[in-house]
Amino acid sequence: MSLGTKLSKQFVRHISDKASRFVPKSGVYPKGFVVGGIHSGVKKDGKTLDLALLQNTFGKDASAAAVFTTNKFKAAPVQVSSKILKEKKGQGINSIIVNSGNANAVTGVQGMKDAEDMVLVTDSVLENSQHSTFVMSTGVIGNNLPIDNILSGIPKLALNHLGSTHEHWINCANAICTTDTFPKLVTKQFRIDEDVYTLAGLCKGAGMICPNMATLLGFFVTDAPVSPQALQQILKHAVDRSFNSITVDGDMSTNDTIVAIANGAAGGEVIESNSSSSERYAKLQHEVTDFAQKLAQLVVRDGEGATKFITINVKDALSYKDAKEIASTVANSSLFKTAMYGKDANWGRILCAIGYSDVSQANSVIPDRTSVKFVPVDGSEHLKLLVNGEPEKVDEERASQILQDEDLIIEIDLGTGAGQEATFWTCDLTHEYVTINGDYRS
Amino acid sequence: MSLGTKLSKQFVRHISDKASRFVPKSGVYPKGFVVGGIHSGVKKDGKTLDLALLQNTFGKDASAAAVFTTNKFKAAPVQVSSKILKEKKGQGINSIIVNSGNANAVTGVQGMKDAEDMVLVTDSVLENSQHSTFVMSTGVIGNNLPIDNILSGIPKLALNHLGSTHEHWINCANAICTTDTFPKLVTKQFRIDEDVYTLAGLCKGAGMICPNMATLLGFFVTDAPVSPQALQQILKHAVDRSFNSITVDGDMSTNDTIVAIANGAAGGEVIESNSSSSERYAKLQHEVTDFAQKLAQLVVRDGEGATKFITINVKDALSYKDAKEIASTVANSSLFKTAMYGKDANWGRILCAIGYSDVSQANSVIPDRTSVKFVPVDGSEHLKLLVNGEPEKVDEERASQILQDEDLIIEIDLGTGAGQEATFWTCDLTHEYVTINGDYRS
Repeated sequence: MSLGTKLSKQFVRHISDKASRFVPKSGVYPKGFVVGGIHSGVKKDGKTLDLALLQNTFGKDASAAAVFTTNKFKAAPVQVSSKILKEKKGQGINSIIVNSGNANAVTGVQGMKDAEDMVLVTDSVLENSQHSTFVMSTGVIGNNLPIDNILSGIPKLALNHLGSTHEHWINCANAICTTDTFPKLVTKQFRIDEDVYTLAGLCKGAGMICPNMATLLGFFVTDAPVSPQALQQILKHAVDRSFNSITVDGDMSTNDTIVAIANGAAGGEVIESNSSSSERYAKLQHEVTDFAQKLAQLVVRDGEGATKFITINVKDALSYKDAKEIASTVANSSLFKTAMYGKDANWGRILCAIGYSDVSQANSVIPDRTSVKFVPVDGSEHLKLLVNGEPEKVDEERASQILQDEDLIIEIDLGTGAGQEATFWTCDLTHEYVTINGDYRS
Repeated sequence: MSLGTKLSKQFVRHISDKASRFVPKSGVYPKGFVVGGIHSGVKKDGKTLDLALLQNTFGKDASAAAVFTTNKFKAAPVQVSSKILKEKKGQGINSIIVNSGNANAVTGVQGMKDAEDMVLVTDSVLENSQHSTFVMSTGVIGNNLPIDNILSGIPKLALNHLGSTHEHWINCANAICTTDTFPKLVTKQFRIDEDVYTLAGLCKGAGMICPNMATLLGFFVTDAPVSPQALQQILKHAVDRSFNSITVDGDMSTNDTIVAIANGAAGGEVIESNSSSSERYAKLQHEVTDFAQKLAQLVVRDGEGATKFITINVKDALSYKDAKEIASTVANSSLFKTAMYGKDANWGRILCAIGYSDVSQANSVIPDRTSVKFVPVDGSEHLKLLVNGEPEKVDEERASQILQDEDLIIEIDLGTGAGQEATFWTCDLTHEYVTINGDYRS
């Protein structure tokens, strides 16, 4: 364990017993990457980790892919990273620099220069060729970065605090957090043919989370060999079904970015995009999607102020798009989310939200074919609430029992006969959410 | 004052000093209408007013108009009233029966029969011809009405508790409330040529308020003479710019209905729809729109848990539709609403919401032409936050001072050169909102 790790561990946020369930005690990490995190002086408390760095040390250029927010007011780092991805066509992006505590968003000309300088200094210190680094920022919007602190923090972090131990990864995950109550880190090993590959990823979330692109900040890396085109396709597929299928508060940030980097350090035949029908491609896509869902679900687990983790399954819709739109509308309804917080089986609010979804206006919802039920996660019997548009005589005691659980699955069957489905993950809307967001900047 | 009025006054909700500002102490009411409200046994406390009735007593058939929710799960009373409006073509609807405490929504076949029976009994007791009554319900979704209580309450209300005094109107306004903290009643007199006309209206709101049709329950009546077609056109125009331009929580109810009735009791030349270019028509439309805005604003004033009343003006947009969509997106952002609650000048969240509005994706928002400012309602100097995409050096003390006020105007200038604008009204998202909605049914 390096000195850096020891030092920074003291400054890591306190993680409650409840949240610590979601933080791995150990992990197997992909070959050829080092990471780390330090306090550089962005966050005002003078100690919490706020600068994270990842470097590909395999010695060969990595493939990179990214999805960015579609918000019109794109933060400076989003604009800069997006330009670099385009310029490099996903080839030869070997590091990621991230600060938390300030989003460098809506910061004018100075903001663009600051983001560019973060790339410049990182490339220089790591002896990369120019424009080999993605930059990300997260935190408050509208203030310029304390850029001197960051630029002097980068060499310190790069030279003394990088490594590949579990502690380094935890530090890195901590350093990108803002209102998160625990660092979000997932690792996974899988096999394609004879080759064993590893995925490691981290993200931050909590508030300003709503789909329609990468919905927060995160990246994951693998030692599998993948072409940039294949990696971009697989990332998009995975993000649609993970980070774009979660919500905390319906707000889409100016900074949302999810990055994937593959350095091929574990060897094997390169997975190409024109092999998209191949078994190796399909297997990797399956593994990355599953992995991205696990990572994205951690964001909902840590939704600002959340006490519940709710899965919304919409079944038998006319299309995947319809199913997802309806699931998303329910997942974003303030009334539904407060009812879940109150452990109130007020399923009328679910119906109400289905009824005003955009899709519903286009005749994809037929009230007298719609059914809704609670599915307890403990495997006990389902509780039917509505069957083909007619309300069931609900056993309120049983409903209340089911709602005591932290986890809940809500199944909405549209009965169209077309059989399409989608899943969305959300949390409840609580007093604590209001406390956190009513007092974010202080 | 009738016995009924005296009796029911005791059972009216307690109105706080803060809310009592919004409740008129007296009013001038249109000729030829009587109203009233009683407790019939829908609300479980056994005393709060929960049944309201309005009757046209002018002796000639009134003109009626209505706009209904676009929610796919239309409540039974919405379906029934909508059918009656169509059947009667707006002619000869002379009464309105409303219950609060139960929305009669998603209540299956029984729910439809209950709504029809409410119309039947009201028509019978008031000696109307068949289908002369609009029916409305508001409250919890998914439970059948205690219909016997309502059906035996209607004759009691109609025969002993109707009148035209201010107290009768206040009772009527109270009887349609659910989580409202004060009754919402507005009256207004105006002149068209030599004729003096009066408008009186009431509504209920508080939660499940979001535009895209009539967004809550309400009705207003006038003694002006208006044809049904003209009244429907004028109502739609007014509702677009009032009840469809407010939000509390972004949820659109299954029951939203706004009704207008004109009995012509004050005399004068009938205002026809083919006279829509005439001065009399224009004058009436102007007066009704202004009146509807006053009424709709009361709903925001009483937004569930609200501590702030926020006006969002979007200026210089490409179209009215664009301006309204952007104003609506900001008005519905949970992060913006919690920041306002926290009196936090976190204007980045305003930008963020502008940036993810649907319109914004279609290139109607040009970041470096967008400007945002706070406009204090006391007439003191504006506070510029963003000018042509560049953040201003904001005087945080001044910002915080402005945010102490209950009322705030936010002006968003899109700088497109096309000059279109729209106004939206919203409130903040507070701890109390979560408390109210986390525990609504108990």
